[in-house]
Amino acid sequence: MNSWANSGADLHLELPSGTGVKAALLHALRDAVQSGRLTAGTRLPPARALAGDLGLSRNTVAGCYTELAAAGWLVTRQGSGTVVAPVPGVSAPPSARAITRRPTYSLMPGAPDVSAFPRGDWSTSIRRVLNAAPNDAFGPTDPRGRVELRIALATYLNRTRGTRAHPQQIVVSASSGHGITLIARALAGTLAVDAYGLHLHRKYIADEGVPTVPIAVDEFGTDTEELKSTTAKGALLTPAHQFPLGGPMSADRRRIAVEWASHNGCVLLEDDYDGEFRYDRKPVGALQGIAPREVAYLGTVSKTLSPALRLGWMVLPEDLVEPVLDLKGPYERWVSAIDQLTLADFIESGKFDRHVRKMRVAYRHRRDRLVDMLTQRLPELRIEGIAAGLHAVVRLPLGTERTVIDAAAKRGLAIEGLSTFRHPDASGTLAEGIVVGYSTPALSLYSATLTVLCDAIESVLRQRPSRASRPDSTRTSPARSSKAP
Amino acid sequence: MNSWANSGADLHLELPSGTGVKAALLHALRDAVQSGRLTAGTRLPPARALAGDLGLSRNTVAGCYTELAAAGWLVTRQGSGTVVAPVPGVSAPPSARAITRRPTYSLMPGAPDVSAFPRGDWSTSIRRVLNAAPNDAFGPTDPRGRVELRIALATYLNRTRGTRAHPQQIVVSASSGHGITLIARALAGTLAVDAYGLHLHRKYIADEGVPTVPIAVDEFGTDTEELKSTTAKGALLTPAHQFPLGGPMSADRRRIAVEWASHNGCVLLEDDYDGEFRYDRKPVGALQGIAPREVAYLGTVSKTLSPALRLGWMVLPEDLVEPVLDLKGPYERWVSAIDQLTLADFIESGKFDRHVRKMRVAYRHRRDRLVDMLTQRLPELRIEGIAAGLHAVVRLPLGTERTVIDAAAKRGLAIEGLSTFRHPDASGTLAEGIVVGYSTPALSLYSATLTVLCDAIESVLRQRPSRASRPDSTRTSPARSSKAP
Repeated sequence: MNSWANSGADLHLELPSGTGVKAALLHALRDAVQSGRLTAGTRLPPARALAGDLGLSRNTVAGCYTELAAAGWLVTRQGSGTVVAPVPGVSAPPSARAITRRPTYSLMPGAPDVSAFPRGDWSTSIRRVLNAAPNDAFGPTDPRGRVELRIALATYLNRTRGTRAHPQQIVVSASSGHGITLIARALAGTLAVDAYGLHLHRKYIADEGVPTVPIAVDEFGTDTEELKSTTAKGALLTPAHQFPLGGPMSADRRRIAVEWASHNGCVLLEDDYDGEFRYDRKPVGALQGIAPREVAYLGTVSKTLSPALRLGWMVLPEDLVEPVLDLKGPYERWVSAIDQLTLADFIESGKFDRHVRKMRVAYRHRRDRLVDMLTQRLPELRIEGIAAGLHAVVRLPLGTERTVIDAAAKRGLAIEGLSTFRHPDASGTLAEGIVVGYSTPALSLYSATLTVLCDAIESVLRQRPSRASRPDSTRTSPARSSKAP
Repeated sequence: MNSWANSGADLHLELPSGTGVKAALLHALRDAVQSGRLTAGTRLPPARALAGDLGLSRNTVAGCYTELAAAGWLVTRQGSGTVVAPVPGVSAPPSARAITRRPTYSLMPGAPDVSAFPRGDWSTSIRRVLNAAPNDAFGPTDPRGRVELRIALATYLNRTRGTRAHPQQIVVSASSGHGITLIARALAGTLAVDAYGLHLHRKYIADEGVPTVPIAVDEFGTDTEELKSTTAKGALLTPAHQFPLGGPMSADRRRIAVEWASHNGCVLLEDDYDGEFRYDRKPVGALQGIAPREVAYLGTVSKTLSPALRLGWMVLPEDLVEPVLDLKGPYERWVSAIDQLTLADFIESGKFDRHVRKMRVAYRHRRDRLVDMLTQRLPELRIEGIAAGLHAVVRLPLGTERTVIDAAAKRGLAIEGLSTFRHPDASGTLAEGIVVGYSTPALSLYSATLTVLCDAIESVLRQRPSRASRPDSTRTSPARSSKAP
């Protein structure tokens, strides 16, 4: 039947039995409107199409529409079809505006400047992909991810991050956290993590039933002597830019970590979460480049483009590829193939490099403004981890972190304290401070947000008795070094 | 320094110490090319930009470029910059063509016609989203998923599938399988599943450490008397179209299942994987519509649009929303917010309905061709589950399924047997047959694929001795009923 047609809205209607078809259809339509299943403004299919769907005559359906319109359930307008009328007592569908919450000031770490997403260039890449992609891009995909993206990533990472990656070692993931959970499951043993590190990654690992053991961390990175004393099967590191403290791992410690992994058959999970953003001229390449057999490298577009894309990658030691794929599933279960091809196009057209360079300049400028304002208003505070990345650590006197966070919250500013990132089993010295995500605010709010931050900190520190005598407050380093490069 | 500029490709170079800067740069560039990190054809940054990055003079960098070009490492062309030359002995990057495998014929179930993806309309929706989306769409998102999509889904599902869904009960997921694992974890007890069902879903549930118990299934759906005798915390059902057998669950059994869930505080997981595709005029609404407190409804675009998008949704009983969100994480970890907004636009602009109706006509036509050819060439075989969906079950005599699959594989055709879907602990009668995914082949290959299928089955059945005397072979039902509607 060709009237079973390719037109009009789709509609689920159950006609009650035991009455004539017209009475049944009248009842079904009234019920759908009254129950709220058909909301005001919904356009009904043309009478001919609905008649085809239900196996009724066109006249029967048209008659029902006329009758329901006369009774006020529907509105029929010449040329624009039949739509559901607003019916008193039936609640309207909620609008997006009514459900979403209001934004506040935020310096929470972890997000880039979302207003800088390259909408136009990304749109161009998607359009190109949707025009040119082979049909198989819309079917089930290789669990490694699309080969086009793995090739683009290998070339890009080898060029910009000093990795030694082959597309066959690369597995696409929804995020670094996703990659970490897969590797943690594959290793099936305790993971060493920094005593200060991303709490969410610790949670994801724990959710897999894998225990973590904290390792001390200082300005040279993870304490590799302590690492050597563990029986962990792997270690989660942030060698380019320790999260959250901010330093790069020293060359010596890199070497020791690699030796440890090599001698014990362990894996170093290298979370290169913001390796693209380095503001001094000291290149900090990926650990994977010197130890591709010991290192599982993890990257993502969350800091360079947007955390809303849910797109990351692993560069795995060869013998970890199959175990990780076994856990990931027989096909790509997580990341849209269209998004993968779009990122491949975005990288290969040079737009990714251009965007990273543009944002590097913008973030360095934001960092300078943060350091300037803090140096001016709160010169006694130490600011750390400013040579790279999208956040800085503002150290606070012991016992003040929680109060400062509360003072900020009272002013509508969300900030995160260092304590959040401390491993619950960590034993070393307690550090207090704020991890300031200076990439987070919209640029138009940046000055105001920094002012609120300083106000909040000041309101707490000024209430404390003898500021000069506190042993744990250190003066900000001289302007030259705090702003370098 | 403004020469630290916003132009040119990004490059990771480590300058060895202990030599002059020019010698160091020459060494670093040669090494990057020789090790394959910089591949032939890569465009280097302009000398001014690289000089800015490294804190060298423009002349030093330009001199290096000239020297390396003279030695054959680089090629400098007026107007098109400096690119890496092809160097003998250094392997070229692999091309996508070299890595991908050749496709074969396939009637594997689970995929729609990938050539029918609405590329143009999808592209229009994405462009609209990228133009109009608020900035917060590029930041971390509500773990429920974007509210715009949840509103669009509630309206769409209530209208077309007869659900009673509110946006606040909807949680976006990467797939039905993703939703099932989250709910299985949240219920933390044995799940009842059909004795014949999707093996991947059983695997995902088992991966979460949750045991499954098989329940007999027949042409009226899951055997609810057997279900009532279990102590399961929930049951995974496909009420609209049992997978893989193909029947709808009877009204009686629906009622019994709901009563069972209601009295025992259990949850019915309704996997509505292809509910949009129904070819007769008997509407089969979602179970969720009659029991929103007992049913967790699961849907996805995998059959309507593409399994490559990795986009699904749950409509949860109110008291399951928070437990599922706790397991999913504090923000949307899996599904791109851009894709979510695009689907919302696609639904609200009416293009989703139009696409579904178009594909419904196309798939019904494919199904008719399958039934016609099988009826003609292998009239003794029974074909089941043809009133809906994207697959049919062709029953085979006991003991022939494996041989038929092998015969098909020899002819380059991938097919899936019924046995694959049988629960390993199932005790009922063994069924053999082929689950024919008739939506899978490209339309241009459809006739050839059906011919290969019939050839393969014939080659096995013709070798068997006395075909007429086999008790388990049933004649195909008469043409009228097999093609109805």
